[in-house]
Amino acid sequence: MTNILLIGCLGKMGKMVTEIANQSNYAKIVAGVDRLPSTDGSFPVFKSLKDCNVPFDVIIDFSRPDALDDLLSYSKENLKPVILCTTGYTKEQVDLISEASKVAPIFRSGNMSVGINVINNILKNISSFLYGDYDIEIIEKHHNQKVDAPSGTALLLGDTIREAIKSETEYCFGREGNHKREQKEIGVHAIRGGTIIGEHEVIFAGNNEVIELKHTALSREVFASGAIRAAAYMKTKTVGLFNMDDVINNR
Amino acid sequence: MTNILLIGCLGKMGKMVTEIANQSNYAKIVAGVDRLPSTDGSFPVFKSLKDCNVPFDVIIDFSRPDALDDLLSYSKENLKPVILCTTGYTKEQVDLISEASKVAPIFRSGNMSVGINVINNILKNISSFLYGDYDIEIIEKHHNQKVDAPSGTALLLGDTIREAIKSETEYCFGREGNHKREQKEIGVHAIRGGTIIGEHEVIFAGNNEVIELKHTALSREVFASGAIRAAAYMKTKTVGLFNMDDVINNR
Amino acid sequence: MTNILLIGCLGKMGKMVTEIANQSNYAKIVAGVDRLPSTDGSFPVFKSLKDCNVPFDVIIDFSRPDALDDLLSYSKENLKPVILCTTGYTKEQVDLISEASKVAPIFRSGNMSVGINVINNILKNISSFLYGDYDIEIIEKHHNQKVDAPSGTALLLGDTIREAIKSETEYCFGREGNHKREQKEIGVHAIRGGTIIGEHEVIFAGNNEVIELKHTALSREVFASGAIRAAAYMKTKTVGLFNMDDVINNR
Amino acid sequence: MTNILLIGCLGKMGKMVTEIANQSNYAKIVAGVDRLPSTDGSFPVFKSLKDCNVPFDVIIDFSRPDALDDLLSYSKENLKPVILCTTGYTKEQVDLISEASKVAPIFRSGNMSVGINVINNILKNISSFLYGDYDIEIIEKHHNQKVDAPSGTALLLGDTIREAIKSETEYCFGREGNHKREQKEIGVHAIRGGTIIGEHEVIFAGNNEVIELKHTALSREVFASGAIRAAAYMKTKTVGLFNMDDVINNR
Repeated sequence: MTNILLIGCLGKMGKMVTEIANQSNYAKIVAGVDRLPSTDGSFPVFKSLKDCNVPFDVIIDFSRPDALDDLLSYSKENLKPVILCTTGYTKEQVDLISEASKVAPIFRSGNMSVGINVINNILKNISSFLYGDYDIEIIEKHHNQKVDAPSGTALLLGDTIREAIKSETEYCFGREGNHKREQKEIGVHAIRGGTIIGEHEVIFAGNNEVIELKHTALSREVFASGAIRAAAYMKTKTVGLFNMDDVINNR
Repeated sequence: MTNILLIGCLGKMGKMVTEIANQSNYAKIVAGVDRLPSTDGSFPVFKSLKDCNVPFDVIIDFSRPDALDDLLSYSKENLKPVILCTTGYTKEQVDLISEASKVAPIFRSGNMSVGINVINNILKNISSFLYGDYDIEIIEKHHNQKVDAPSGTALLLGDTIREAIKSETEYCFGREGNHKREQKEIGVHAIRGGTIIGEHEVIFAGNNEVIELKHTALSREVFASGAIRAAAYMKTKTVGLFNMDDVINNR
Repeated sequence: MTNILLIGCLGKMGKMVTEIANQSNYAKIVAGVDRLPSTDGSFPVFKSLKDCNVPFDVIIDFSRPDALDDLLSYSKENLKPVILCTTGYTKEQVDLISEASKVAPIFRSGNMSVGINVINNILKNISSFLYGDYDIEIIEKHHNQKVDAPSGTALLLGDTIREAIKSETEYCFGREGNHKREQKEIGVHAIRGGTIIGEHEVIFAGNNEVIELKHTALSREVFASGAIRAAAYMKTKTVGLFNMDDVINNR
Repeated sequence: MTNILLIGCLGKMGKMVTEIANQSNYAKIVAGVDRLPSTDGSFPVFKSLKDCNVPFDVIIDFSRPDALDDLLSYSKENLKPVILCTTGYTKEQVDLISEASKVAPIFRSGNMSVGINVINNILKNISSFLYGDYDIEIIEKHHNQKVDAPSGTALLLGDTIREAIKSETEYCFGREGNHKREQKEIGVHAIRGGTIIGEHEVIFAGNNEVIELKHTALSREVFASGAIRAAAYMKTKTVGLFNMDDVINNR
């Protein structure tokens, strides 16, 4: 059993993490941190991390980027694993995370679903082999309220592909008019509509054949499940920077 | 049996039309026109339309836009149906075609496949009903040698949608950065890779459901088949402008 | 504003209908019927239909098949429109519904989503035209807890196709071993896995081209929305049997 | 440059291999074997393998299963690599191939496309990890003239999955009636229609997410390309049994 302290426990994702952990047989939320402390629910909620007097194994954070400093300090002092599920960190914050991971156990992943990370892992293995003979394009679909395009996950997958391919490549975010494709282009297409939760598709189109890898999120619950799985994995770690690939590969 | 005079009979598409017609039991190429006249093949090939002394029912044209004047003159004089499969006509030429159709039987379609026209027909019926509650996006996929983006067929479908919807809409050919979708946007995404023959997909994404209409061309033969089917339909026509929708609806 | 009496208001779908109606600006749940009467919520809940003393316009039923007799009696006596969203009626019950609709306004549909009904409507129009040249197959995907296969909606679509095609056809629910397809076969394939909410895809595969019509339910909310939309449509009806096609075509 | 002796050079696939090799810059057909010997074409055609007096590096076989004995004898005597692209070998013949590969360089693969083998390779890596949390289903689509169902390639992929998963699994070739999915089922669905060349899709459906791996053959040319690629890889081999995975992994 992994005992979890959940930062941002009263938010939308926090509630989902709690629900999913309760349904699992290997993890439990034993305490929470949020703006409104309480003792009503199934676990006590504290106003800040340092107020928490309940023993726990791992911290899961689904709050805001500005909570990072406190989290890293705490983890370094207490050597408690932290699962960072918050997105939108600045470049400086990403550097701070790397720095902290030299002395503390930190987990951070661009997408918490197991499936996206399985695909990301596959891309590391096959992209370099296929590039040159196969043209690579990414299509992502999300709801019409999404502000950024393409999605962070599409760029995560694209960056993995570009790192795997040693030669020069460049993103192409749409084609209009006279535009004959160059080999180095990696098309990234952001489809928006209705309430689509999240689809990501990587296409390798070669001579007379096409390979497609596709991920569909059916519900945001999938991100909560990933966080809990990561927590169980991190329970025994004492130092280093980890991500979903580590969880997947070391199962 | 429909007897066909085939303009551009020695080109890639011309040869395919001949092969497909020969396999059918309702149409036959009885004569051809091309740069290199001959009497060797299964039908005589003439250097120009006016040299043809073989009786026929319908003309199929898979040559070049500059053959249009001769074709229209001939059709007007002889009231012979003409199936225009050539693409790339100028706005002026399109007007000439309309004008000629007032006295002669002319057929012209942006895409000769039956399937695309079935979908185009569906779009006329449902777009106005769905618009407002459903966001509309088009995805097309073609080989990496295609010069124009998006495809003419994607724009054919998109224009049909926009005509059906009475309110103001605008195309969006890609999204990057801070770009929250507006209702009036119709996304048109051109994917390019390998030797993909041609796929067109129209997505209606609403609250908690998505409707997709998709067409896949498995071979360029499908355009030849459409032309022959159109020829059989036009055989008895004496005046007017027709397209694949007429063939489909009047079957 | 359409004032709704909701039968089965405390069940999973009943709660969803309430939530969706409250979010709409044209419909409102004014009373409910369920096993546990209460006055706590936003509307009074009665133990039976005849106890309800709140004025309303339309009844929506998301309860059980055995509630049918009471519903039909009530509707015939009071000429109140009834939206039957319960599934699993016997052949005899379906006949009773038809009979009742001769004197009362009854709505019944195999699938309450607008999208499935848009596709069903398209199938009525195109199936007969395409059959013979195009082979028809249906693929449906649902979660691994679903008991029946194929889904009722897949059969609804399949039956529509078979009625539209005048010649003899037969379902094929899987192929194994030496099995060359016959033209009259309509393949219906039931994929099961994970928590997939519901996908239905109809494939028309012809010579060198494929047409696909696909519907994806992203959440069960879509069925609640359909019921509310049907209620608004039925408000002014006094007699007859209606379904989602009527809602769609008479918009 | 790899110099190839092509067995079955006048058949449909033989001609395609010749065409594709000629377009490549690393392989060339230098001689052929077929029923009708000739010296007319771009390379001499012999009536039997032992008549061939042209030096070559590798044999590609696209003929019939009954040519196997001669091929294996020749390869054992001359230590020439053989690429076996013929399908339909009996269990005994498969054993003979294994036996021969102890002293000669033999290549054999259930599907010659690079893409299917990339996917097969991925399945080896991920199936065991995902099984238990994800339900696995395979969908394959082929033309309406295909006699066997499901396709040999679908079973190749399915067998790979079953070998990777250590626990007991069983195929399910269609679902009808009361059929709730069991975890150990691997659904394999054979869709048939029109002229579809070949699609294979493996679905991993888990809690709130779906991973799909899909391969589409756009033309039979893809199998010819795979054979030529295998020939170049085998050129330097002297003993052992190889398949497309070796080509892919050792690139």
